[in-house]
Amino acid sequence: MNGELFDIMGWQAFGDWGTSRLRLFRVEDGRPRERCDGPGIGALDTAPETILREALAGWRNQGDPDAIRLTGMVGSRNGWVEAPYVECPADASGWARGAARLDLDGIPVVIAAGLACTRPGGAHDVMRGEETQIFGALRLHAPLADGRHLIALPGTHSKWAEVENGAITGFRTFFTGEMFALLRDRSTLMRAGDMHASADEEEAGFGEGLARAAQDPSLLGTMFEARAAQLRAGRTASWALGFLSGLLIGNEIQAATIAASAATRVCLIGDPRLVLRYERALAGTGLSVNSLDGDNCALAGLELLGSAA
Amino acid sequence: MNGELFDIMGWQAFGDWGTSRLRLFRVEDGRPRERCDGPGIGALDTAPETILREALAGWRNQGDPDAIRLTGMVGSRNGWVEAPYVECPADASGWARGAARLDLDGIPVVIAAGLACTRPGGAHDVMRGEETQIFGALRLHAPLADGRHLIALPGTHSKWAEVENGAITGFRTFFTGEMFALLRDRSTLMRAGDMHASADEEEAGFGEGLARAAQDPSLLGTMFEARAAQLRAGRTASWALGFLSGLLIGNEIQAATIAASAATRVCLIGDPRLVLRYERALAGTGLSVNSLDGDNCALAGLELLGSAA
Repeated sequence: MNGELFDIMGWQAFGDWGTSRLRLFRVEDGRPRERCDGPGIGALDTAPETILREALAGWRNQGDPDAIRLTGMVGSRNGWVEAPYVECPADASGWARGAARLDLDGIPVVIAAGLACTRPGGAHDVMRGEETQIFGALRLHAPLADGRHLIALPGTHSKWAEVENGAITGFRTFFTGEMFALLRDRSTLMRAGDMHASADEEEAGFGEGLARAAQDPSLLGTMFEARAAQLRAGRTASWALGFLSGLLIGNEIQAATIAASAATRVCLIGDPRLVLRYERALAGTGLSVNSLDGDNCALAGLELLGSAA
Repeated sequence: MNGELFDIMGWQAFGDWGTSRLRLFRVEDGRPRERCDGPGIGALDTAPETILREALAGWRNQGDPDAIRLTGMVGSRNGWVEAPYVECPADASGWARGAARLDLDGIPVVIAAGLACTRPGGAHDVMRGEETQIFGALRLHAPLADGRHLIALPGTHSKWAEVENGAITGFRTFFTGEMFALLRDRSTLMRAGDMHASADEEEAGFGEGLARAAQDPSLLGTMFEARAAQLRAGRTASWALGFLSGLLIGNEIQAATIAASAATRVCLIGDPRLVLRYERALAGTGLSVNSLDGDNCALAGLELLGSAA
């Protein structure tokens, strides 16, 4: 491990390029200076190189970056260049060695590997992007790098990972975020009531959804209540949206914390608004919670990819 | 038209008009003679009257029907004419009295009421169409009309109803069928593997999904395995589709039979192919199963709407 310093006054482009969006940062002296958002790797109508050149063009007055480092679905089979999965248990250096390396117009590009695990019983699981945030969190928050820790990353596909002495030993994916979007945008559950948006009603619904998840673990048997309550109890669509969010997040947390019964605390990494909802849901579990910003963790994780170059 | 002949040899149009399709039967002497399918009440681009006139036009050489009876979402607020919900407990005569009555070009039309219930704890639930099948089943299968029975109606929104001495006392909706369609058509779970269809692989996946549901009640925490197994274990999309079906049906049956722990048998009503899957899933529960065809039950239930005219 060669604790490399930035020996020149250049800048780097660090990005989290997932299925639904690109978040690209201009990093200088190890700190993010500017951000540029772009389309997700799952919905490109042009080559990834073109998108990246366009994103970088806005920073052209800073010259070219001396490195580009990317994490997320950009490294998947259907992304830009495939970076194979590294099998768990995996520590930061083993993971960094799995990165794919190429160049874009002469600029070196590193694309992070994903992680795979096989759980007891034989079920397979994969992640791409979250491992970068986890390894970044271990750098940013030193106590996480020793001993055993439970780390939760809420999102489209929420991940609950176990970390032991700096290595990710295993993880489990919950389909929570994608499920919520499907129910909100594509299901009959949200087509029964008053569509006037109300943050208060959504918040009340969220609390009731959490309570229902704690009473009843059957998601299939409780989610229709979102519709029935609009038809029979005068609930609004805002309430129903909050109810479904609470039901799903509550269900995820019930299942994840039952499975990790030895844990006494959990570290949450993600979008601050989503993390707030998980903090509220975790309040009833007795676990102590420490929350970290997802972008900061991703940038700290991408720094690690330089040391294996 | 030969009025005298049709006075003696009249026929009726009985239909199940749900969100996604119309199934209209030409009934003569109490038996279905012909069937005509049409668009669901949830996706009409023209008036329900027009659709119905078009459907009946194919049988014009039989003269006009002397009655039209319809059940399903056609009686909902967003259907043709609203037939309010009848509250549980409800027997056949109380339900029949709640039907809406109108006419179409002089032909009397009866639209079945739905049922509503409030479960212990306060959760609301509703059904439209399934109650017609249940009351029909009680007519077709005499033992169901006495004592307590558990009746399951697999479908877009599966219903599990309790019947006591001929009355529906309560029920619960499982979101299974709509969830399956969302995952199949709209999710990222089915976009990872070989899309070549194989009935054998789908069947094998179904069995593995059932087994996973029995091991692990967390749907959110197991469904991503459908994708990971395509990426990591060489599973095909056909296998994943079967796995998701098994996972969802298994999950529904686990939750529904735990809640109805006093039951020793269950009556299944529905589409014969779907009923076969539920029979397979129920084989592990120790419950004895009796299965009835959904169309036959619906027609028998619609007969009941005449007696209250």
